Amino acid sequence: MKELTPADLTVRNLGERTIVSPLEIQFGEMGYEHAFFSDDSRVLVDHSLSHLKNLNGAEPACFEVAGPRRKIYFHPRKTTGAIVTCGGLCPGLNDVIRAIVNQSFYRYGVRRIFGIRYGFEGLVESYGHQPYNLTPESVSNIHSFGGTRLGSSRGPQDPAKMVDYLSDLGVNILYVIGGDGSQRGALAIEQEAIRRGMELAVVGVPKTIDNDMIYMDKSFGYETACAAAVTAINAAHTEARSARNGVGLVRLMGRHSGFIACSASIASGDVNCVLIPEVPFELDGEHGVLANLYERVMRRGHSVIIVAEGAGEHLMTGPGGADASGNKKLGDIGVFLKGKIEEYFRSRETELTLKYIDPSYMIRSVPASPQDRIYCMRLGQAAVHAAMAGKTGIVVGRWHSTYVHLPISLVTSARKQVDPKGDIWLSVLESTGQPARFY
Amino acid sequence: MKELTPADLTVRNLGERTIVSPLEIQFGEMGYEHAFFSDDSRVLVDHSLSHLKNLNGAEPACFEVAGPRRKIYFHPRKTTGAIVTCGGLCPGLNDVIRAIVNQSFYRYGVRRIFGIRYGFEGLVESYGHQPYNLTPESVSNIHSFGGTRLGSSRGPQDPAKMVDYLSDLGVNILYVIGGDGSQRGALAIEQEAIRRGMELAVVGVPKTIDNDMIYMDKSFGYETACAAAVTAINAAHTEARSARNGVGLVRLMGRHSGFIACSASIASGDVNCVLIPEVPFELDGEHGVLANLYERVMRRGHSVIIVAEGAGEHLMTGPGGADASGNKKLGDIGVFLKGKIEEYFRSRETELTLKYIDPSYMIRSVPASPQDRIYCMRLGQAAVHAAMAGKTGIVVGRWHSTYVHLPISLVTSARKQVDPKGDIWLSVLESTGQPARFY
Amino acid sequence: MKELTPADLTVRNLGERTIVSPLEIQFGEMGYEHAFFSDDSRVLVDHSLSHLKNLNGAEPACFEVAGPRRKIYFHPRKTTGAIVTCGGLCPGLNDVIRAIVNQSFYRYGVRRIFGIRYGFEGLVESYGHQPYNLTPESVSNIHSFGGTRLGSSRGPQDPAKMVDYLSDLGVNILYVIGGDGSQRGALAIEQEAIRRGMELAVVGVPKTIDNDMIYMDKSFGYETACAAAVTAINAAHTEARSARNGVGLVRLMGRHSGFIACSASIASGDVNCVLIPEVPFELDGEHGVLANLYERVMRRGHSVIIVAEGAGEHLMTGPGGADASGNKKLGDIGVFLKGKIEEYFRSRETELTLKYIDPSYMIRSVPASPQDRIYCMRLGQAAVHAAMAGKTGIVVGRWHSTYVHLPISLVTSARKQVDPKGDIWLSVLESTGQPARFY
Amino acid sequence: MKELTPADLTVRNLGERTIVSPLEIQFGEMGYEHAFFSDDSRVLVDHSLSHLKNLNGAEPACFEVAGPRRKIYFHPRKTTGAIVTCGGLCPGLNDVIRAIVNQSFYRYGVRRIFGIRYGFEGLVESYGHQPYNLTPESVSNIHSFGGTRLGSSRGPQDPAKMVDYLSDLGVNILYVIGGDGSQRGALAIEQEAIRRGMELAVVGVPKTIDNDMIYMDKSFGYETACAAAVTAINAAHTEARSARNGVGLVRLMGRHSGFIACSASIASGDVNCVLIPEVPFELDGEHGVLANLYERVMRRGHSVIIVAEGAGEHLMTGPGGADASGNKKLGDIGVFLKGKIEEYFRSRETELTLKYIDPSYMIRSVPASPQDRIYCMRLGQAAVHAAMAGKTGIVVGRWHSTYVHLPISLVTSARKQVDPKGDIWLSVLESTGQPARFY
Repeated sequence: MKELTPADLTVRNLGERTIVSPLEIQFGEMGYEHAFFSDDSRVLVDHSLSHLKNLNGAEPACFEVAGPRRKIYFHPRKTTGAIVTCGGLCPGLNDVIRAIVNQSFYRYGVRRIFGIRYGFEGLVESYGHQPYNLTPESVSNIHSFGGTRLGSSRGPQDPAKMVDYLSDLGVNILYVIGGDGSQRGALAIEQEAIRRGMELAVVGVPKTIDNDMIYMDKSFGYETACAAAVTAINAAHTEARSARNGVGLVRLMGRHSGFIACSASIASGDVNCVLIPEVPFELDGEHGVLANLYERVMRRGHSVIIVAEGAGEHLMTGPGGADASGNKKLGDIGVFLKGKIEEYFRSRETELTLKYIDPSYMIRSVPASPQDRIYCMRLGQAAVHAAMAGKTGIVVGRWHSTYVHLPISLVTSARKQVDPKGDIWLSVLESTGQPARFY
Repeated sequence: MKELTPADLTVRNLGERTIVSPLEIQFGEMGYEHAFFSDDSRVLVDHSLSHLKNLNGAEPACFEVAGPRRKIYFHPRKTTGAIVTCGGLCPGLNDVIRAIVNQSFYRYGVRRIFGIRYGFEGLVESYGHQPYNLTPESVSNIHSFGGTRLGSSRGPQDPAKMVDYLSDLGVNILYVIGGDGSQRGALAIEQEAIRRGMELAVVGVPKTIDNDMIYMDKSFGYETACAAAVTAINAAHTEARSARNGVGLVRLMGRHSGFIACSASIASGDVNCVLIPEVPFELDGEHGVLANLYERVMRRGHSVIIVAEGAGEHLMTGPGGADASGNKKLGDIGVFLKGKIEEYFRSRETELTLKYIDPSYMIRSVPASPQDRIYCMRLGQAAVHAAMAGKTGIVVGRWHSTYVHLPISLVTSARKQVDPKGDIWLSVLESTGQPARFY
Repeated sequence: MKELTPADLTVRNLGERTIVSPLEIQFGEMGYEHAFFSDDSRVLVDHSLSHLKNLNGAEPACFEVAGPRRKIYFHPRKTTGAIVTCGGLCPGLNDVIRAIVNQSFYRYGVRRIFGIRYGFEGLVESYGHQPYNLTPESVSNIHSFGGTRLGSSRGPQDPAKMVDYLSDLGVNILYVIGGDGSQRGALAIEQEAIRRGMELAVVGVPKTIDNDMIYMDKSFGYETACAAAVTAINAAHTEARSARNGVGLVRLMGRHSGFIACSASIASGDVNCVLIPEVPFELDGEHGVLANLYERVMRRGHSVIIVAEGAGEHLMTGPGGADASGNKKLGDIGVFLKGKIEEYFRSRETELTLKYIDPSYMIRSVPASPQDRIYCMRLGQAAVHAAMAGKTGIVVGRWHSTYVHLPISLVTSARKQVDPKGDIWLSVLESTGQPARFY
Repeated sequence: MKELTPADLTVRNLGERTIVSPLEIQFGEMGYEHAFFSDDSRVLVDHSLSHLKNLNGAEPACFEVAGPRRKIYFHPRKTTGAIVTCGGLCPGLNDVIRAIVNQSFYRYGVRRIFGIRYGFEGLVESYGHQPYNLTPESVSNIHSFGGTRLGSSRGPQDPAKMVDYLSDLGVNILYVIGGDGSQRGALAIEQEAIRRGMELAVVGVPKTIDNDMIYMDKSFGYETACAAAVTAINAAHTEARSARNGVGLVRLMGRHSGFIACSASIASGDVNCVLIPEVPFELDGEHGVLANLYERVMRRGHSVIIVAEGAGEHLMTGPGGADASGNKKLGDIGVFLKGKIEEYFRSRETELTLKYIDPSYMIRSVPASPQDRIYCMRLGQAAVHAAMAGKTGIVVGRWHSTYVHLPISLVTSARKQVDPKGDIWLSVLESTGQPARFY
């Protein structure tokens, strides 16, 4: 990751905090006076000793610690919040919604929270989507179900129109649960609000099932997704070894980052080859994927291959263009690879039983695991603390086990990827026995 | 179902039973003398009072009851068994294998059971597949895993070659776990053995994940498959209602019979339309599937459709031909329907978020549920009792809660299907609210 | 089972049916005219050929087939239903409630259904429990959760008070979901209504997690319970074999009938000894349970024992008395057996690691499996058809795969039990390897 | 946590490393030269900026980073390893065993690894337990099952006898998977080996289902256990709300630390009161647990209480003494509390339906979740790297997302506990709505 400057880490505040937090009283009664954090509370970005020594006494780059502030910016009873969920499904969306609503109501006494329908579309009046009024009652059971109670949509909308609508609704705080495209949209809304002198706090909860957000220990829903992916791999393995020359091919999520493919493969223990966007490979060479697969099948009778959505982009002459979220449209590497494997075996007159599994929607739609539930709750709570304190243009995250505030501009500046020289990929190589290079 | 004649129900026996069953001693010690069944023990095919009255005193059609016989045909210590699994995966295959092995060893004292590899291929010497020697130890854990420990393959093989190989191996009993194609193969083997005067008992355990075997309460693995299918439907429902104009489309197994599609849809409770092979439908008419779907989406915002593999065959101009098992190759109705739906919404300039799920392999590969485990065990035990008694050319089944012997020729003569005028389909209509006819 | 007389099987009807069923129109439109059943539609109680022959031409005992009638007794728009759930939890209660509500509303057009709270207590005004108004909306999600949405309680209440209250509420149909004690309560209500000349149909849906209702293929929730019990057995097995001289002891439900203990043990495949109420055993003899267990542990290092709640009653000097449902209060055989085993090993100065698991509440509270969901739905639908037709004093059930009407007096006259000479117990003996007798 | 001194963090090395790691070649071929770590690679114990500033330039306390070293101490082909698992079951034990075996064989070429049976007992010859020879084949499937393949036992054994036996077996590396008592045992073995001048590396993998090991992000199996605990809480909740005045009481693990009780309660969202060892409470006071519970049940009709095993020790007049592991024997707080609650309601003549669930063994025995599988694998790999490099007297752990070496003496010096003034407990208070103090 690039060297960080203080500017990269600066958190914008709407203004001076003058209102005593309702938590002051609650915590006081409970003996929790020390539960408050000041904006000076910080943790190091890099906690290695060598980094510290290299600084030669210069101040290290640090993240602001998240949590309740003793004084807040918004008067709870006069505050209106709004929550929007954007992009593809991810386990835990409903948990984050529920946490924001409960925290706002029960801890701060906010009484008005809109649930914006169908992503940013719901912020553009002409679509005609009526927002929900969210209350602890209306969200009490939603975490038992996958998906998003609010609905979602892909793609950006005009910031001016969205700020118009937020202004009409009287929204003071906008919570944006979405991926990097959506957080860029959140930033655009914040900028537009600044331009208009509107007092709007925009706080994001980063959502990426691919776990590709930088400076995050993990993204919510990712672990649940890995567990669901293991189920699909088990199926592929069962099919493969129940057939002569059986090949199980599973396509997993991972447009730019292969974390799910790597973790699920390691956890499964039954995978023989993993292909991810970060690690280039050749299909056709003498030591290419196909020759390697063929050799393995001849030797052991079956094989299991996992391919991340974004792997092998160089091989694809896809439909091109981009989807509504601005994601470059890739051809389908899974289907492509399936064809290539079949062709390879056919050309060698070798029978093949290939079972292709694309479990994406069955993974994205499951309810969050208990650990992810807790994580979502903590992220949602941190978002409310930040927003009530008047912080804006940030997402909440967890870094080295501490909840922190991260400027949106920072987290959308780059993507976390599997390091092809790092320990995760090494574990994949060890676990699969695949060669370090397909060429 | 057609009227049955006594000939349809006749069970062939290899010859007179002269050997006292080892169970005679075991059961005697346990006080189970009465646990034996005679070949005269029978249950009615049709147990309705009206049927009985219509007989006017004629003998009703009956199935022979399965279970241990007091005298058996094969001398256990001189008997060699062989097990073969054929066709696509189905939950419970390993349970049936395990039951046959354990029953043969522990109850009858048979010491030699071959596990034929990769279906009928493993009975043709030139393929070079070495059979396993199965023992209670080698099968002790296999039921924890899905698939088949023996491997499987599709398609018939030359009966003469298979009987040659069985003869070389000294096999007296062949257990065929497979669908109707495979049971026809079993019958061909039996006929060839008869022709040669070879003493070979051929006993089948019918395997059809589609539940389309006639005169069977249910096929093993079917209930497990339904439960797994519900998981896929849940995913489709979650995706559909999380999007504006969201449609979840799930393609389930069911080449000729829509039992899984019907049962899983009823159990889910979230399905709005089910399409199965037994019930004709039009896509394009004014009251066709597409118009109905469109109207539902406009009205409620989302919809879930389930389509069985073999539905809408008339619509397809598929690749034609047949697969190795002789199953007619259908074009993929799921992909076809997906295209049609997208086209329909596009032509109406209506945005659509369609999520297509094909969970077949994730369903076929799961381990059996506890109830299916028990059912597989009972079927496997019944098969061993029948084979040791010298019965041949039959499958074991369960009819109206009683385990019975069914001639292979009978069960392969027709297919069980969902009755478009019966209570299952009525339940589907009630549960989905779909119209009785798409036209 | 005892010989049945026609009187045992007679179904009482409130009176002549004069109202055309709304289904007449619906079914007609759908082409389902033939879906109706007449009261003459019957199935044989005993479908064996030998039984038939023994009749010598006499009319065989038959059950009335359940299903919609062309004419009904109650005018849907003027009809008020009430549902009550009694006794301990069982998977599927909410599914039955939901089915009754949906069927009443959508098929018959009934608009008023009370959900009685906390069992029969809710029918006694002085308890002050307000009934719910149930609608398809209010029950739409309840099947996702275990337990009963209505609440339950144990024990009988005064029939006169209950009929008073039903009369005050204007209830025409009372659906009683409960065990044999509760069905006896239902019968008392029916009798009281008859005495008063009140037009009340009382229709039961038999609930017994123990599967001990006679003339029922299976009780709802039973299969789900077995699957949950297998999970507990797996835990016991894991604990037992991870310790030196490890014993896993699991107490399962089964006050009078050991079906769950038997089925779960067979399905698990890891059980070494099963003790049920139907099969007497001695703990202390030379060939008793304790000596057998000790020998097994010495030989194999570990053992798993399953004991049904009601097993070994002769050994217990329990607290005596009866609980509120009138069930005789047993001492806890699990705790008792645990103590005995520990004592036995201690007296032999043998170390023992015994893990005792009582999973009852974790079993009773799970949501129904997909198959049980369908079964509950079908039972609920059959109950509504019966009640609307004016049938009373019956429960709905399934016998040899056909849904039937069973007089309450019949099903409460005896209990289904595991036959110590039958195939289920034989399967247990085979699967566990335990001796046929502990003495 | 107390202030750390450099001595607390010192890792002992058996001696100079002179052997080129086999990984040098493997990694070189794969282009992973940089994957090695030196002993100077360190991470800060405290990564807060404020801590750094308070140091005033003094060197901060750091942990040594785990991972492969370029040179190692033991010659792989001459090295004999041994693995022992001690204490109660915990999800993931088999995964750690498997990881150590696979890493030793495949990465380092070690050919001899003993699987010590039944904990430290297996290291005392007189018990007569023969160790297993572990190979990648023999451990290939063990992670599919819970428990420990090796068996376990509680309690210490004589270090001299254990070192005698290790010496007889020719063991160079001993891997101890166990809790703090067992790690103290490991330290005693190490000390005895030092005394004898024996070249034995003792490396621990800390096992504590309670998550109470200090300086560990989390202990393996803990997250799996929390998920299983949520299942038990769901059951209690279902039982409680299905009864009038229903109380669900669940006793969870947590002798000294209530992490599982807290996390599972937060994740469940249905808990009304959590009692843990770290937070004192009164049962009987006017604002005590019982009065609070009573009031809640009167107001809402039901309540769910979670109590950790070690909570309320002051209330118990238990059997005293200690178990074989040296854990002080507590009376059973769950049973005690059950009695107290029943008494309280009885004294108020209020009916109560209390369902008590103790799911401990059903939690301890489950297989690890996919995330825990990965975590176990990483810990096992780190243990092998450390041992081969000649490190001894340490456990491997993860701190702020980095795998590190921790001296056994450090991790056994104190216990991690829930901070009664910290954010976890605050989340519990928020989630349950229980008062901060019961008095």
